[in-house]
Amino acid sequence: MSTNELRVGLIGLGTVGSAFLEVLRSRTDAIRHRTGIDLNVVSIAVARPHIPRPLAGDVPVHGSGAAIALDPDIPLVVEASGAQEASQWIASVLSRGGVVITANKQALVKNPLLLQALADHHPNLHCEAAVAGALPIIRTLRDSLSCDRVQLLRGILNGTTNFLLSSLERTGSFDEVLRQAQLAGYAEADPTADLSGADAAAKLAILTTIAWREPVPISCIEVQGIDSTVTQQVKEACAAGRRVRLVAKAWRNGHIAASVRLEALPQHDPLASATGVENIVQLETELAGKLSWRGLGAGGVPTASALLSDVLAAVQTFTRPVRRNAHA
Amino acid sequence: MSTNELRVGLIGLGTVGSAFLEVLRSRTDAIRHRTGIDLNVVSIAVARPHIPRPLAGDVPVHGSGAAIALDPDIPLVVEASGAQEASQWIASVLSRGGVVITANKQALVKNPLLLQALADHHPNLHCEAAVAGALPIIRTLRDSLSCDRVQLLRGILNGTTNFLLSSLERTGSFDEVLRQAQLAGYAEADPTADLSGADAAAKLAILTTIAWREPVPISCIEVQGIDSTVTQQVKEACAAGRRVRLVAKAWRNGHIAASVRLEALPQHDPLASATGVENIVQLETELAGKLSWRGLGAGGVPTASALLSDVLAAVQTFTRPVRRNAHA
Repeated sequence: MSTNELRVGLIGLGTVGSAFLEVLRSRTDAIRHRTGIDLNVVSIAVARPHIPRPLAGDVPVHGSGAAIALDPDIPLVVEASGAQEASQWIASVLSRGGVVITANKQALVKNPLLLQALADHHPNLHCEAAVAGALPIIRTLRDSLSCDRVQLLRGILNGTTNFLLSSLERTGSFDEVLRQAQLAGYAEADPTADLSGADAAAKLAILTTIAWREPVPISCIEVQGIDSTVTQQVKEACAAGRRVRLVAKAWRNGHIAASVRLEALPQHDPLASATGVENIVQLETELAGKLSWRGLGAGGVPTASALLSDVLAAVQTFTRPVRRNAHA
Repeated sequence: MSTNELRVGLIGLGTVGSAFLEVLRSRTDAIRHRTGIDLNVVSIAVARPHIPRPLAGDVPVHGSGAAIALDPDIPLVVEASGAQEASQWIASVLSRGGVVITANKQALVKNPLLLQALADHHPNLHCEAAVAGALPIIRTLRDSLSCDRVQLLRGILNGTTNFLLSSLERTGSFDEVLRQAQLAGYAEADPTADLSGADAAAKLAILTTIAWREPVPISCIEVQGIDSTVTQQVKEACAAGRRVRLVAKAWRNGHIAASVRLEALPQHDPLASATGVENIVQLETELAGKLSWRGLGAGGVPTASALLSDVLAAVQTFTRPVRRNAHA
């Protein structure tokens, strides 16, 4: 093992995990060049290890996420499984002093210890991929804006409901556009987590917790979802020149208030311009003023790109800073 | 001097320099808390040192930017002067192994050595404030997207011309809206650098150089500006449902091509939605897909917030990484 090798464990080899493994391999040289570190995936855990995984190549594939989470010889763990147990695995990696990167929003918000770690900007816990896909919003909150003060945070954080709402403006019944979304891969076979607002609420809990460095449990968020009755609301709003969007919003005025709600927005509202599976995040801060990000909120490769950005940040914690001769 | 003190030199105490000094003071505790470092401004250089500067307080104010640039006891220099000599000062700080943060786009692009340093992502040279004000685009290109591949970059990078172009859609003659812009502080008394496209071109040269890690001199950018003849073009575009914008654009197809040009954009183009002094930057990358940022491109406090974000990044190079017990 070369001194610059970093052993990586990967949990999950579904859409996101597979895209991440391919992206990591395609960027090995670039990562070595930028960071001086050779990333080496040494272990992969999947839910159904008996299925052949040609993508894994020589890397051992097994069924135990816990084995990776607990292995002291795997300093960096990428958790891309969406599994129920992920929350425990993430906590285990942190407990043993490892670094963990996760795309799993539900795992983060259901464990109060992890929510506290997010509030603390724990240097070993990275979750860019858990919120708003490829948008580099978490890193910006943790780094560039860490001494600014966020006053208001608004966003379109769920691509599925946004696809449905923007499609309903043009055509069809709710069931029909939901079926289209499922065919296009924009909605799960069981779309409950998206339609109920739970997915957007989990993302909002994470963003809010990081922005204000204070745990915001999902139970403190007022959550509204959508069902077929929204169709009428969309048509009426359209007739009035407005657009119905599922808006995630949080602000601080003494205490933190947060909600996920249907709003009929005027067309000039930037959130109204989100169409299809796009995500938008808007901040109002004391110093930077109004800032917004827009981009792909889901999909294997965009999510893998967010995991890769966390890998690059995580690698920094394994290396000395590369300052050139500056005097301190 | 405590071991955690970091001595800072500030060059320039105009709109941006003053806002930065105030922001830095208001955030001293937060910076200490986040980084463990006490920033201490020990020297300020201004062009007219005989004018009283109550804002400076106890800090010595003098007339020599070079004295700060060359002082080995000032490891961190913030250059916010806009002076002609800034290019030399920045190079001097780098030569002696210091860290320099600058808001001065023209100084960066006129010196081939500095352009090369930008292309190399030199760890001691920070310039978030030089491009698109408070938008954290430079940091994202250098960190999160450093192993992605940018394919296309487009933006509204000059707030003055955007204010003029969007105002002309509603009212007035060119001279009238220019006067309004000057009264509102959105245009200089001598607006040549903005109107000629030179300001947008310098910002594009910096963005492009960082995105593709290759020096893109301003002489390689095709540049168009605006004058009173644009009024007719704006009216005709409006009549056709389009909006004229000064679009900065760069793409790589074998070699890098870059231009600053007037374009009549369809209304659904996100760049068309930039009104007033807003800036927008759009990227298309291989992994993250389409990403865009929108926010305030100028102003004392937003620009100071970008300088502050660079200070936070720079401070990292003076400290050991704060990983908790991870095994490497």
